[in-house]
Parts: sequence; C-alpha cells; structure tokens
Amino acid sequence: MSREKRPGGRTARNRSLVLDAVAAILLEQGFDALTVDAVAERSGVHRTTVYRRWRDVGGLLADSFDAAREDAWEPPDTGSLVDDLIAINRQVVAAFAEQPSVTQALIAASFRSAAAERALREFWEDRFARCGIVVTRAAERGEIRAGADARAVIVAACAPVFYELALMRGPAGADIAERYARMAASGL
Amino acid sequence: MSREKRPGGRTARNRSLVLDAVAAILLEQGFDALTVDAVAERSGVHRTTVYRRWRDVGGLLADSFDAAREDAWEPPDTGSLVDDLIAINRQVVAAFAEQPSVTQALIAASFRSAAAERALREFWEDRFARCGIVVTRAAERGEIRAGADARAVIVAACAPVFYELALMRGPAGADIAERYARMAASGL
Repeated sequence: MSREKRPGGRTARNRSLVLDAVAAILLEQGFDALTVDAVAERSGVHRTTVYRRWRDVGGLLADSFDAAREDAWEPPDTGSLVDDLIAINRQVVAAFAEQPSVTQALIAASFRSAAAERALREFWEDRFARCGIVVTRAAERGEIRAGADARAVIVAACAPVFYELALMRGPAGADIAERYARMAASGL
Repeated sequence: MSREKRPGGRTARNRSLVLDAVAAILLEQGFDALTVDAVAERSGVHRTTVYRRWRDVGGLLADSFDAAREDAWEPPDTGSLVDDLIAINRQVVAAFAEQPSVTQALIAASFRSAAAERALREFWEDRFARCGIVVTRAAERGEIRAGADARAVIVAACAPVFYELALMRGPAGADIAERYARMAASGL
C-alpha cells in the first residue's frame, strides 16, 4: 500500500504531507491518537485545510486507501500461473513483514471506522481486478481451462496468507507464500 | 464460538454470567464500552470478584476464547473430504451470519487487546487441530495421498471464507463455503 509521492502543486503536496502524517500517527501511536488536529499538527498543513478537505478520521483513512489505489501496481508476469501467484503472495508477506507495518495498521483501523472498512474493501477489490490478468494469461497459454473465476483463484491463493498474517498475526512458516499459491494453482 | 452453559457451583455460574455480559456489551456497545465495571454491573457479579478473577478487559476477552475452546465441538464426518470441508465452512459462514455476530465482535476486539489476540490465535489453532481428523480420515479412505499437511488443507479451505467475511466483511456470494472447500480439496 505504498504511496507515490507526486510532483505537483500545493494541493498534491498537502495531500502527501497529510497522508504521511496519518500513517506515521497510526504506526507510532495507534488509532486512538489519530485525530484531525493531530494530523494537521504533524503534517504542518493548516487545520482548516485538513478539516475542509478530509472532514474527519474516516475521510483521512479512506483517502489513504484511495491514494494506495492510484499507484501503477501490476501483478508479476513470470510466464507461469503458479509463479505469478507465488510472487503476488510474496508481496503480501513483505507488506506485513515491514516493521511497523502500514498494511496491518490500516487493517486494524478498518475495524474502527466504517469509512476505512469500505475503502479497504475497494482497495482489495481493485487489486483482485488487476490480478485477474495472471489467470487470463494462464488460460491463454493453455495452462488452465478457460473460464476459471479469476477472482476466486486469486483469493484462494492470497487469503490463507492474509489469514495467517492479518488475523492469526503469525508467526507463520517461511514458506506460506509458496505453499498456498501452489495449493490454489494445483486445483485448477 | 458458542459457549456451553455448565451446571455447577457459584464459580461456574459467575463465569457464565460474566462472559455473557462481555459478549452482550461487545455486541450492543462495542469495545470502548467494555470495562470491568460495566461487566460487573451487567452480570450482577460483585466487582471485586470480577477484578480478582479476570483482572482487566484483556483477561475477560481471553477467558471468552478459552471458554469457547472448552466446548465439545468436533468436525463433521460426512464420509468425504470435500463434504467435510464444505460443512466446516458452512459453520464459519453461519457464525458470521448471526446478527449481531459474536465471532466478528471478538475478532474486532483482538485488534484492541494483545490478550484477546493471543487467545483468538489459540482458539483457532485448537480448532485446526480438531479439524485435522477430516484430512487423516480422507487419507485412510485413500481419497488423498497420505502425508498431506492437515492444517494447511484446513486453512486453504477456510481462510478464503474468513477473508471474505472477517476482512472484506462481505457481501460474499452464497456459494463461498462450497467454492473454496472444493478448490482446497481438488488440489490434493
């Protein structure tokens, strides 16, 4: 869920400062410390600007996910379905391995804010949609039958990794990225 | 995560009253309303008793998971691996479909309390261990090769359902229990 810093005017710069402050406060102090005033102070952006543009904590969190969706992320293209799924899962593992993990902090926040919950869902659906190409390519190569439900394949591969890391909160075996990708691909 | 009411003395009765109060407060008012004093008041159990036995909110939540682990739950035995996995997944779906869902409330609480997080992990590991028998039986029947990692099979089947319901928070298709159970079984 990394965010590109964009060149641009004051509006883009303010957004970048504000969303960096949201992430920093979540990571260092947790959700309860996340207020519009704290974000304004930390970011150096005027609080009336923050209130006008993001309104409340829900708005700040939702925009954090929206910013993450605006990146140019594409799934890997290794030439085989199972290797594509392994590579995707390794990226998920890496996001949770960051210390501290923005991904985990945003998931936790989604249990506190309905706006964040909605935005997280949209973020993941967008990622699933982008990942669909790995299933389409596998069908075109004749690796799997045509007509497989791409979203279900991606969820089958990734969900065990999210389960182990986001819900069980590890420690999980070093091989979970590969293991569950192989299990998802082998059933097709 | 339903809890058996046990016959027994005052200690057992107090525990039942206290844990019912924890669930009721979580469901009706959420984590922020969950305090030892609120639990004492709602349960009718004397607050010094609640403090002495459960100490704090973490202790109350941990004991809620421990109580859930003390049940006699066994996985279904339908005679086929895929049908066992479907039946397990349908129980997961049913737990989230309760309105309101104690399961979802306890998962949310696990993001607020380290004790609850630990207890939730132990609860799930215990469930996985109990479910292992469905994989063992399938191997004995010759349905799958011997030596499959039982926990990984169960996680592959259930994790997508937890992902869709606990993290994406639905709405998920009506067929998710069956779909992901079939995908997990077909890869073996």
